[in-house]
Amino acid sequence: MEEKLNQLKTLVAEIVDLNGAASLLAWDQQTYMPPGGAEARSNQLAYLGKLAQERAISPALGKLLEELLPYADHIDPDSDEACLIKVSYKWYKKATCVPVEWVVEFTKVTTMANQTWVEARQKSDFSIFRPHLEKIVELRRQYATFFPNVDHPYDALLDDFEPGMKIADVKVIFDTLRPRQVEIFKAIREKPQVDAPFLHQAFEDQKQFAFGKEVISKFGYDWQRGRQDQSVHPFTTVGISVNDVRFTTRITPNFLNPSLFGTLHECGHALYGLGHRPELERLGLAVGASYATHESQSRLWENLVGRSLPFWQYFYPRLQDLFPTQLGNVSLDAFYKGINKVEPSLIRVEADEATYNLHIMLRLEIELGLIEEKIEVKDLPEIWNMAMEEYLGLTPTNDAQGVLQDIHWSGGSFGYFSTYTLGNLISCQLWEKINQDIPDLPEQIRMGKFDTLLAWLVERIYQHGSKFEPQDLVQRVTSSKITPEPYLRYLKAKFGEIYG
Amino acid sequence: MEEKLNQLKTLVAEIVDLNGAASLLAWDQQTYMPPGGAEARSNQLAYLGKLAQERAISPALGKLLEELLPYADHIDPDSDEACLIKVSYKWYKKATCVPVEWVVEFTKVTTMANQTWVEARQKSDFSIFRPHLEKIVELRRQYATFFPNVDHPYDALLDDFEPGMKIADVKVIFDTLRPRQVEIFKAIREKPQVDAPFLHQAFEDQKQFAFGKEVISKFGYDWQRGRQDQSVHPFTTVGISVNDVRFTTRITPNFLNPSLFGTLHECGHALYGLGHRPELERLGLAVGASYATHESQSRLWENLVGRSLPFWQYFYPRLQDLFPTQLGNVSLDAFYKGINKVEPSLIRVEADEATYNLHIMLRLEIELGLIEEKIEVKDLPEIWNMAMEEYLGLTPTNDAQGVLQDIHWSGGSFGYFSTYTLGNLISCQLWEKINQDIPDLPEQIRMGKFDTLLAWLVERIYQHGSKFEPQDLVQRVTSSKITPEPYLRYLKAKFGEIYG
Repeated sequence: MEEKLNQLKTLVAEIVDLNGAASLLAWDQQTYMPPGGAEARSNQLAYLGKLAQERAISPALGKLLEELLPYADHIDPDSDEACLIKVSYKWYKKATCVPVEWVVEFTKVTTMANQTWVEARQKSDFSIFRPHLEKIVELRRQYATFFPNVDHPYDALLDDFEPGMKIADVKVIFDTLRPRQVEIFKAIREKPQVDAPFLHQAFEDQKQFAFGKEVISKFGYDWQRGRQDQSVHPFTTVGISVNDVRFTTRITPNFLNPSLFGTLHECGHALYGLGHRPELERLGLAVGASYATHESQSRLWENLVGRSLPFWQYFYPRLQDLFPTQLGNVSLDAFYKGINKVEPSLIRVEADEATYNLHIMLRLEIELGLIEEKIEVKDLPEIWNMAMEEYLGLTPTNDAQGVLQDIHWSGGSFGYFSTYTLGNLISCQLWEKINQDIPDLPEQIRMGKFDTLLAWLVERIYQHGSKFEPQDLVQRVTSSKITPEPYLRYLKAKFGEIYG
Repeated sequence: MEEKLNQLKTLVAEIVDLNGAASLLAWDQQTYMPPGGAEARSNQLAYLGKLAQERAISPALGKLLEELLPYADHIDPDSDEACLIKVSYKWYKKATCVPVEWVVEFTKVTTMANQTWVEARQKSDFSIFRPHLEKIVELRRQYATFFPNVDHPYDALLDDFEPGMKIADVKVIFDTLRPRQVEIFKAIREKPQVDAPFLHQAFEDQKQFAFGKEVISKFGYDWQRGRQDQSVHPFTTVGISVNDVRFTTRITPNFLNPSLFGTLHECGHALYGLGHRPELERLGLAVGASYATHESQSRLWENLVGRSLPFWQYFYPRLQDLFPTQLGNVSLDAFYKGINKVEPSLIRVEADEATYNLHIMLRLEIELGLIEEKIEVKDLPEIWNMAMEEYLGLTPTNDAQGVLQDIHWSGGSFGYFSTYTLGNLISCQLWEKINQDIPDLPEQIRMGKFDTLLAWLVERIYQHGSKFEPQDLVQRVTSSKITPEPYLRYLKAKFGEIYG
């Protein structure tokens, strides 16, 4: 068994090396690659992807895993080795259910669709994108049929992002959340609104970048094992190595929020990536438990920490020192309310904490309708706009501001969106538990101390990588599966105070 | 045949993609990788290297090549396809002559030796490095035995850097060169020496970088297909893609020369890399013809262009504008003589045009002695110091300034050094031909025009990639094999003028 286990580790480590190399290539593509390098880069990434995929579905791997499964049942189920065998087997089985021809077709279709989506969004014309999306939906419906044992076809898609999660569970959560989230939003809108024009001034690029750097250094971001760069779209690369987790920031010169909270958000992802036990790296387990778990960490550091009053009690004087002409006369209270301003928006990525989930629910309904064949792609712009009106009281004036705004569908990522909301919920669920365990956390944050918080997260969440499925992990830490109650309590308390 | 040719192209393109990815990983390692990333990077590079090597010696490739060889003899021998077959076959045959166990052992030994060399150089203690170098020399002697058909064991080593070149030819060239180079050097030393303290002042980093950028933009460096960064050791990465050729610069704050001429040197390598016909990329032929050919281009742009009077007639006023306090009162004549100052130095990389080759000859003699088993590793410091005294009239005060100064041997690179001198010779041989073909070149350079020069080099040298062996290429362009005469004429004319 020992020998077979070593063979398994060698095979898995090869996939880890290939994916790590590909992650660096993708990072460079979005940061430092000159434009001329695009074609060669796409060839290199395609070939590395092919090699990794061949290894992930190789019969040699399957045989080893099947021989090792009984062994996994006889050792500590939480041990690295048991998890290595079980998690590897799960993905091996899933990957081998999908015919190679489907993967080739899907890659071809989504590559084209992605390019077309860019053009369609630029021209704000859904009809250009429509035939591509129709093909993608057809392929995604077909994908679901490769997994005849799931309770619902959508489960096959969801599982790629949230291992083990079922749409039935998500529905229960969302059905509880929706009316109460709408209620909170409406209550806020009936109160006097916040005005924060001071956030929209000229803020020098270098100073914005420096302030973000100061904050995340305080968070405990390890500059020996990561770096921060600038890019058109901010992103985090956790795939190079557990000891090399990089993220990027985009500076908006005339608005303070995007760079600042974008930095804290990406840093949250990066802290998660840096917190996995290094021993998990070559076992392929030094990745997040799921997309929602990852989002829970970006949201936790961005919102629960970074938009909190104690945080700004510490950092606001520093920010004022940096921008005396812009913020010298703005009180902490006005600033705090300003960065927490609630305002319905057409664009998901610009949404505040009180409306964000509504954007997600709209998208999940559409995805479900498409997979269940209850909605047709041709009707999407109309359905989208009606739902926006219903949820947020806004109607997009064009497709670019409506159905074409997100990149996800053009890449075939059906099942992704709900992880954003699940991430929000998990973040608040953990936050309640953290505050029970560290009663003086607000006081610590008010003093710029984040080490107890980070250590708690590393100990409970980060170190485990992908050893446990997200529902299991949340249950272990909070003694409850994912629930919207802590999130709703948080919204009510926070915005109740801000809006009276 | 058509089908077999396509199969060959597919196999070669896979190796190209793997090497391209590895090149980017190596570039990042020396520029932006955080220290923590080192271990994962070394795993990734090792695995990509293993995959490329497996493909380079695969029996499938060998079979295809053997079937295609007769076809290559029936088509235009200068065609891309004929060269693809012949060049691929050459390297395939060479790679398959070397036992896999030797490669594994060599990689292990040189990895260790490289680390030890760093320590030995730091402590200036050859005895630490000695056992590692002994092992390397033993392995290199063994390597030569895998090629029993060569005229001299050293040819097997030389051929890795200079395809087709033989040590007998190099000896003839060096034997002609040595006495006349020494004679020129001695004649210079008998004249009044140049003093240029103005080069050793505080020159602002940003301005140094900006000036280099201005010069290479004028040279025609394509920023859409490359980039310039800073690193501890300047280097050029030509392996990512013909459309993505990057180089780095190191700024020395208190001395103008290293960054300035380092930038022009690396840019010369980069221009060569950018000039290969793009169609050659996926045939594996979009690389330089040899190390000497590459060095001929870095030297051409650094020395023949960048240390010439016409060049500074154009650029010196600009440099003075940038550094008015440092250079405002220094005449063009004094500056030109200053940057061409001849002074014997213990360190190869600091050597001027008139002494550089003497450093190389010393190294080649030692390498030959080691491979021919006429010299023992234990005697190297003494032999080194005696030769330095003989050639340059200097004696190293310690091993760091002597036998330990270069990294090459610690990586097992025997056969590399002579390519530096051959590069110098080729650059001058081409330069004479260029000046015949473009009689007003000095006038063009005096006006900051480099496009005719670059176009000439692309047309005659760069575009061909590695289709032709270096001697063949030089013969095609200059109607003569590599010869030291143009180089000696150049030295005499230039330094005759400067030193009277």
